[in-house]
Amino acid sequence: MLKTNAGRFFEDYTIGDVIHHAVPRTISGGERAMYHALYPARHALYSSDEFARASGLPASPIDDLAAFHVVFGKSVPDISLNAVANLGYAEGKWLKPVYEGDTLRSVSEVIGLKQNSSGKTGVVYVRTSGLNQHNETVMEFVRWVMVRKRDENAPAPETVVPELKQSIDAADLVLPEGLDFSNYDTALSGDPHRWGDYAIGETIDHVDGVTIEEAEHMLATRLWQNTAKVHFDAMHRDDGQRLIYGGHVISMARALSFNGLANAQMIVGLNAGAHANPCFSGDTVRAWSEVLDKADTSNPSIGATRLRLVAYKGDAAFELKRDDGKYVPQVLLDLDYWVVMPK
Amino acid sequence: MLKTNAGRFFEDYTIGDVIHHAVPRTISGGERAMYHALYPARHALYSSDEFARASGLPASPIDDLAAFHVVFGKSVPDISLNAVANLGYAEGKWLKPVYEGDTLRSVSEVIGLKQNSSGKTGVVYVRTSGLNQHNETVMEFVRWVMVRKRDENAPAPETVVPELKQSIDAADLVLPEGLDFSNYDTALSGDPHRWGDYAIGETIDHVDGVTIEEAEHMLATRLWQNTAKVHFDAMHRDDGQRLIYGGHVISMARALSFNGLANAQMIVGLNAGAHANPCFSGDTVRAWSEVLDKADTSNPSIGATRLRLVAYKGDAAFELKRDDGKYVPQVLLDLDYWVVMPK
Amino acid sequence: MLKTNAGRFFEDYTIGDVIHHAVPRTISGGERAMYHALYPARHALYSSDEFARASGLPASPIDDLAAFHVVFGKSVPDISLNAVANLGYAEGKWLKPVYEGDTLRSVSEVIGLKQNSSGKTGVVYVRTSGLNQHNETVMEFVRWVMVRKRDENAPAPETVVPELKQSIDAADLVLPEGLDFSNYDTALSGDPHRWGDYAIGETIDHVDGVTIEEAEHMLATRLWQNTAKVHFDAMHRDDGQRLIYGGHVISMARALSFNGLANAQMIVGLNAGAHANPCFSGDTVRAWSEVLDKADTSNPSIGATRLRLVAYKGDAAFELKRDDGKYVPQVLLDLDYWVVMPK
Repeated sequence: MLKTNAGRFFEDYTIGDVIHHAVPRTISGGERAMYHALYPARHALYSSDEFARASGLPASPIDDLAAFHVVFGKSVPDISLNAVANLGYAEGKWLKPVYEGDTLRSVSEVIGLKQNSSGKTGVVYVRTSGLNQHNETVMEFVRWVMVRKRDENAPAPETVVPELKQSIDAADLVLPEGLDFSNYDTALSGDPHRWGDYAIGETIDHVDGVTIEEAEHMLATRLWQNTAKVHFDAMHRDDGQRLIYGGHVISMARALSFNGLANAQMIVGLNAGAHANPCFSGDTVRAWSEVLDKADTSNPSIGATRLRLVAYKGDAAFELKRDDGKYVPQVLLDLDYWVVMPK
Repeated sequence: MLKTNAGRFFEDYTIGDVIHHAVPRTISGGERAMYHALYPARHALYSSDEFARASGLPASPIDDLAAFHVVFGKSVPDISLNAVANLGYAEGKWLKPVYEGDTLRSVSEVIGLKQNSSGKTGVVYVRTSGLNQHNETVMEFVRWVMVRKRDENAPAPETVVPELKQSIDAADLVLPEGLDFSNYDTALSGDPHRWGDYAIGETIDHVDGVTIEEAEHMLATRLWQNTAKVHFDAMHRDDGQRLIYGGHVISMARALSFNGLANAQMIVGLNAGAHANPCFSGDTVRAWSEVLDKADTSNPSIGATRLRLVAYKGDAAFELKRDDGKYVPQVLLDLDYWVVMPK
Repeated sequence: MLKTNAGRFFEDYTIGDVIHHAVPRTISGGERAMYHALYPARHALYSSDEFARASGLPASPIDDLAAFHVVFGKSVPDISLNAVANLGYAEGKWLKPVYEGDTLRSVSEVIGLKQNSSGKTGVVYVRTSGLNQHNETVMEFVRWVMVRKRDENAPAPETVVPELKQSIDAADLVLPEGLDFSNYDTALSGDPHRWGDYAIGETIDHVDGVTIEEAEHMLATRLWQNTAKVHFDAMHRDDGQRLIYGGHVISMARALSFNGLANAQMIVGLNAGAHANPCFSGDTVRAWSEVLDKADTSNPSIGATRLRLVAYKGDAAFELKRDDGKYVPQVLLDLDYWVVMPK
């Protein structure tokens, strides 16, 4: 009777499966402090209870990406333990801020399956939701991963590829209850530039860089109870390197984007994301952004901005893809997301 | 007037001495979060207030081993600053869970003394207790260490070797007040296997591994205010290596054992423990377990399981000792402890 | 329209300027736990709510130096992003302890300007104050930094060099409201030596050492939202080294000084400080102290002690300056500060 979890293989998924992920997690001030120690995170709403209250929230929530990591991390043992690659994200929405004392759990539904032509692997699409102790969904997102088959001779399932939005409609973005930027203080937020100061097509080099350490990415990845071996075990890959959790790069890039986007306070939508190339200890991560779109929201003091956030290593900003459409080797992350900003 | 603490030497201990250790410590959500960042700890009772409440506790306590580390750490300046080796543990009992807001201090009584035949060192046995702000004992354990003599010509004390139990009787294990696993949810805990699914003699390879980093073991050891030089000062040993606190290996192995023993929720007894070989940065730590014994408890929803937990480096599980009875070089830890599980 | 903060240059400062620094920060138990994980900090007042209450405070505050780091860190983007060197500190006072739940922000006033003879740089003197959510000043200090000019041809400002006290008068030190050491327990604090046991001129070798890791100094520096590139980006300096935030050395040395000064509980004044030589990962930091002065306070149970705290690397304590008055190369920090101790 094998007691350990070997993870699911491609043939273990069925369309419509609902998987309740294990190990709920209560968030405290400790997780908030760790997030601020691990990333140069400075968005004021997530740093100061007073700033959050002036913006209509009861207190400063944990960073939106910390909430994402907790929800994502719980899904790893059931979804991506045998994943060859994390292929993409879509339709991510933050629905409720997460506060100290909240307890999160995750549930995923299998919404797509497609065996690869090799017959050795397949793509699994899941919609993962994070729920709090009141069974309210605090966030949800779709991701798809390439998973190994246990038995290459297992029959292929019927192919189902879900129709996913290229981008969330601005009208479908959800503002946290009470959020209002009428009294927004740009001296305290660290940047005079408001929603109206950014133009579609504008690009921003976020200037700063952080050199990645093994201890830091492991602390981060464990904090979210993400258990994928490849992040922790230097004997797992032939080259002796520990692959860095893609979410570590997302959080690092988002934090670096403060310098130029300090008022891109809350992340409310995740349209797409690609981990373009692997990141390893010793890489120096930098970031640049492009303004993709802008929209009004239901609140006249708040505007929505759709951003591309690119993390790269080395020092060549603004390069993205080669002529053949492939990412240049120094690009680590290409993320497409919606934020809300003060008007 | 020397102001620094040079630590006690063998001739400084007398049978019956009661040593009140310094620097009480208040536990907050920060210590809980750090513990989860330092170890892949996922036992649900220590991760979720909701899960803990469903199990009859008022909230999620800090990990039992975190409580152990706090209590142990306080004893280091008085007991093991001049220790040559930490020889063993016995009769460890967890009596009350430790919650955020609790303040712990430690007291040790000298219960045994035996000078070694070399005349240069001796073995000191102490029973160390951790007390909370209400002066309730939250845990206690016996440990014995080999300590240098200050003066080799100092007379040997009368030899007193305490009679210590090979293992705590299951009947003497203490369940936290209110603990009940009648409504235990194995989907949330992450493992379908209950107490009845484990057989005496069964062994489990916990599969996962973590490569140790200097920054991580130092963060951990400092968090428990353990001050032994050898963990922090690369100039202390001739080989320039920092010796890793044995408790770091204990917590790492216990956390890794989640994969196969996710329902071994609470540690209630420590029967024995040996730090078989030293651990250094760069070692990849893995773990395997053996079911040594099983017993009922006073609560029909809760069973007790006695486990051997072995931490080792490299990739050869299930090896333990050579023919001559010595541990094989890759074994780091051999721990014998009692847990409680849902029936 | 450049969106990123390039920092201020020498010609951007005017005497009397008041700069409100961005990103207020709410402190929780997480910051306290991180501080204890990053430094071997054991002063009992900052470790135990019970000990703090026995000393007349409502709870255990965060370490005085953690409060300093938060206040300092906020000033970095406006004061020292283009600093060539952090030249000195003076007139630092801790006015109110900082507790969990407090939100801090920082304000600096420009009090001195002096262009260097090269015409390429100048010295900026600021008085920086940290304020809590009630707009009470919790601490303040003067620091001066050498800052690059953007344009070497910009005219020099009128030279104003503020008159700064060599040392704060003991009579001007502020004791936290309610602080009383009448019931001080030296068994719990970890050291029998009280204020009366220290003599002016006495020196103490603090014995212990900690080898510095990249991950640890970056975690610390980010925790205080200090954004100076040189601490994080290994590509920033030609030698590929990350310069360690001087405050990391201050906190490390202060924590190491526990062994010999465990009853030097609260820091109440900062008279002077020099970062004598740079510190890098791999250095082993040690510390020694010298008693510079002693004074009574308004409370008969509390004495003030003025200390020199020297951090150095390697193993040669008590060396400080060469015959020509320059610091010997192994000295990292020379700090002059006031503490309060139990009489």
